[in-house]
Amino acid sequence: MVKWTNYDELDSAKELASLKNQVDVKSVMSGDNGAKRVKEYSVPMSSGLVYNYASKQVDDKVVDTLAKLADEAELVDKFACLYNGEVVNTGEKRLVLHQLTRGQLGDDVVADDVNKREFYVSQQERIAEFANKVHNGEIVNEKGEKFTTAVQIGIGGSDLGPRAMYLSLENWAKTNKCFKMEARFISNVDPDDASAVLDGIDVAHSIFILVSKSGTTLETLTNESFVKDALKKAGLDPSKHMIAVTSETSPLAKSDDYLDAFFMDDYIGGRFSSTSSVGGAVLSLAFGPEIFARFLNGAAAEDKNSTNKDIRKNPALLDALIGVYERNVLGYGTTAVLPYSQALSRFPAHLQQLDMESNGKSVNRFGEEISYKTGPVIYGEPGTNGQHSFYQLLHQGTDIIPLQFIGFKNSQMGNDVVIENSTSQQKLKANVAAQIVAFACGKDDDNRNKYFEGNRPSSIIVGDELTPEALGALLAHFENKVMFQGFTWNINSFDQEGVQLGKVLAKKVLAGDTDGALKAYSELLEI
Amino acid sequence: MVKWTNYDELDSAKELASLKNQVDVKSVMSGDNGAKRVKEYSVPMSSGLVYNYASKQVDDKVVDTLAKLADEAELVDKFACLYNGEVVNTGEKRLVLHQLTRGQLGDDVVADDVNKREFYVSQQERIAEFANKVHNGEIVNEKGEKFTTAVQIGIGGSDLGPRAMYLSLENWAKTNKCFKMEARFISNVDPDDASAVLDGIDVAHSIFILVSKSGTTLETLTNESFVKDALKKAGLDPSKHMIAVTSETSPLAKSDDYLDAFFMDDYIGGRFSSTSSVGGAVLSLAFGPEIFARFLNGAAAEDKNSTNKDIRKNPALLDALIGVYERNVLGYGTTAVLPYSQALSRFPAHLQQLDMESNGKSVNRFGEEISYKTGPVIYGEPGTNGQHSFYQLLHQGTDIIPLQFIGFKNSQMGNDVVIENSTSQQKLKANVAAQIVAFACGKDDDNRNKYFEGNRPSSIIVGDELTPEALGALLAHFENKVMFQGFTWNINSFDQEGVQLGKVLAKKVLAGDTDGALKAYSELLEI
Repeated sequence: MVKWTNYDELDSAKELASLKNQVDVKSVMSGDNGAKRVKEYSVPMSSGLVYNYASKQVDDKVVDTLAKLADEAELVDKFACLYNGEVVNTGEKRLVLHQLTRGQLGDDVVADDVNKREFYVSQQERIAEFANKVHNGEIVNEKGEKFTTAVQIGIGGSDLGPRAMYLSLENWAKTNKCFKMEARFISNVDPDDASAVLDGIDVAHSIFILVSKSGTTLETLTNESFVKDALKKAGLDPSKHMIAVTSETSPLAKSDDYLDAFFMDDYIGGRFSSTSSVGGAVLSLAFGPEIFARFLNGAAAEDKNSTNKDIRKNPALLDALIGVYERNVLGYGTTAVLPYSQALSRFPAHLQQLDMESNGKSVNRFGEEISYKTGPVIYGEPGTNGQHSFYQLLHQGTDIIPLQFIGFKNSQMGNDVVIENSTSQQKLKANVAAQIVAFACGKDDDNRNKYFEGNRPSSIIVGDELTPEALGALLAHFENKVMFQGFTWNINSFDQEGVQLGKVLAKKVLAGDTDGALKAYSELLEI
Repeated sequence: MVKWTNYDELDSAKELASLKNQVDVKSVMSGDNGAKRVKEYSVPMSSGLVYNYASKQVDDKVVDTLAKLADEAELVDKFACLYNGEVVNTGEKRLVLHQLTRGQLGDDVVADDVNKREFYVSQQERIAEFANKVHNGEIVNEKGEKFTTAVQIGIGGSDLGPRAMYLSLENWAKTNKCFKMEARFISNVDPDDASAVLDGIDVAHSIFILVSKSGTTLETLTNESFVKDALKKAGLDPSKHMIAVTSETSPLAKSDDYLDAFFMDDYIGGRFSSTSSVGGAVLSLAFGPEIFARFLNGAAAEDKNSTNKDIRKNPALLDALIGVYERNVLGYGTTAVLPYSQALSRFPAHLQQLDMESNGKSVNRFGEEISYKTGPVIYGEPGTNGQHSFYQLLHQGTDIIPLQFIGFKNSQMGNDVVIENSTSQQKLKANVAAQIVAFACGKDDDNRNKYFEGNRPSSIIVGDELTPEALGALLAHFENKVMFQGFTWNINSFDQEGVQLGKVLAKKVLAGDTDGALKAYSELLEI
């Protein structure tokens, strides 16, 4: 039996607190020692990725203490509890099974009299069969014509993750001749969102994927109506253009309104659902089931790395605990995610949800108030774009922001030009290497305006190329990092009670049941 | 003569510091008093917008002290110095003249023997003439066919602002029948960025806008080559498909490589250049010069509001100083920008650059180190999407994040559906009203997991509709807010020395001139 203990009650946490300002990055990253650290402070991941933490404010002593912390807090054992099917989501009294969508790390998990791994696989198989039929022309529109566009209707986890994954692989798939159809996404209840997407597609050749676990998400049902209206206005039958991804118990599950329905369940939170049917339907339609399967394989391989009890061989665990050290000992409140890959343009937005929704909590898993900091603010944009934007503050602002770089040796599309003796890809890589060192080592200058203090910590994940496997591994790395941090802080990373109050009050506004400030704001906005 | 004084030397700053925790939002926003505040704590802006700060942690006493601070720091006088042409950008010894692109608030400004207002207007007129000729078929491709797509090649300020503005008005223009041509953007040196954009357009009917003030920006020149290669491969003459936006002294200014060149100058920083030729060329091509002129009018009207010495009638000044109070007295390190408008999807990314690049500084305008906090981290995504994502942390996380909401009474496209007795636009507005009150007032609950502490401050800018004028006013509001904060902190908001070191090191990497950590990272990335 693992023991769930608050972070500030752990002996190793107290020891860690004594190691504040243990390492000055500027001094340890200078000269030959810097090169040595880059070579040594590197953890292999799966799919050719490596997690390098040379420029973090840690040394062997700090990492040894993080290892103790991992042991004392039984983090890897708690992960085992999770994948073996314990009720780890205590708030909602649910199992947490997203890892089972891509592999099986432990015992068979049976819930509701169903082997859950078999259930998830069966849904993947059903989606694969459906997607293949769409691609080969067995499932077609009313006129017998092939569908050319898949449109996901969903919000939050049913939108950000699948959208980020689609964008990550869109150009890779086109280059590698496995691109099947365009995907688009409708999410916001803002009517201009659905209108703009619908204006930009050929609805007669579009298949819509309605994604809502409960079948009751306001935005999604509203946007479904929007789409149905557009289909009807075009003289089309909505039920021939729409599939559902939902839970088996939802009102959408067995409705004649859809060509077919694919299932998820309560054991997969929205923000962890990219590898479930939520991501599976749209990605299998866009790229084919084989590509989706490769993406799952990458995630599964990285999940396996996360079971390693040796922190120096478990990149998600190490990344998580360095983050805890930065948050709780060094006192940094935000983290920037900076992928040097345009394909990962929306990956930071997905991580923003994954991390902030999971670990933005002020009570422990027993509902008791805690007195230490939990999840940081996460944000980011691709490099080199960010360099010409907010990096100024990262370099010379008054707060230190830990940085999470991501880079690849090769581009996805292979198309390049040589200018001044280097390719664009080389320039891209030269920039990320330069930034890491600039942040770490800074630069002296008598003109204080041109002075760089340095000692600004970063890590980088380096890969060969952003393939489906590499993307799966990246995704799993961050999912597991967030999970390990949640375990460390003794919070429940798998519920989201903080989103409920706004929903309740919005309903009151729409019902006209308001007074005081709510009524005044309603008047201001002329609702 | 104004006096440039460090923030912590101002008497009013010390007085402000004594007002920490002066206001509990939860208590003042409850009941009738909350409704009263919503009505009273409201400042009219131009173009039908209003800035409402009822849910901020301020009361009359705090605002009175902010007014004193504005007076003591001579903030409005410093703005006058700026628009009257003093060398306000002390680091680079430059005037700061972006306001002159949209109006004239003070004296004639003559620099380099040129009346600068006349210069900016002349460039607008040249762009208008050019754009009209493209639209009416006088300027065409080699085959005599009309151009259908404009592609901006630029990075940082030459990308983020114009891109955000384009997306803000794209659907409005389509709905209002003034849409002239699509715009696309190439920015990142990642070769996959240019490749993907080029794959998605019809190059034979595309006109490319190369934007670089110096004419030496690495990313932009590299992407120009990328585009030229693509044009040549398609059998086209690049010089018949490309215009330049640059300074008159740049190598691009009088080159036969371009159909035409339009000018900017050193007195307009990239992040403040959306209303200059940098935004003017692409927006005039996309929507027509009349729409760009309306956008400028909106910005000019809001600039005028920023000259008001009464803080209660100067929304940018009030917004700025409430931000200073939150940053320096209440100790909040980040601000989230949350537009309830899908059209503003990239507006937060633009503000992120505008704010963080301007005010992420640790030295004052004389190059002396300062010991107080300056610019916060800025990030955001459109609502209602964000509600299903990172709002969990905003509601129940361990840090307080000030929030900047933006909302409109009407949608841009006018297309809507009624579900459960309300339109999507009503649902959108109900959600933003509900969120403000949820953040401010929270909710008691014996279950601490469902407990909302409240007292989370926000403001909202409300408009009738996101028109060109409203967008211009919004943009100017934030530009002036950032400027006033920079003046208050006594920093130079108009240089960006923090971006230089990375450029220097990247060049070293590409030249193979590396050792130590830089060499090791270069090897890790196989550059």
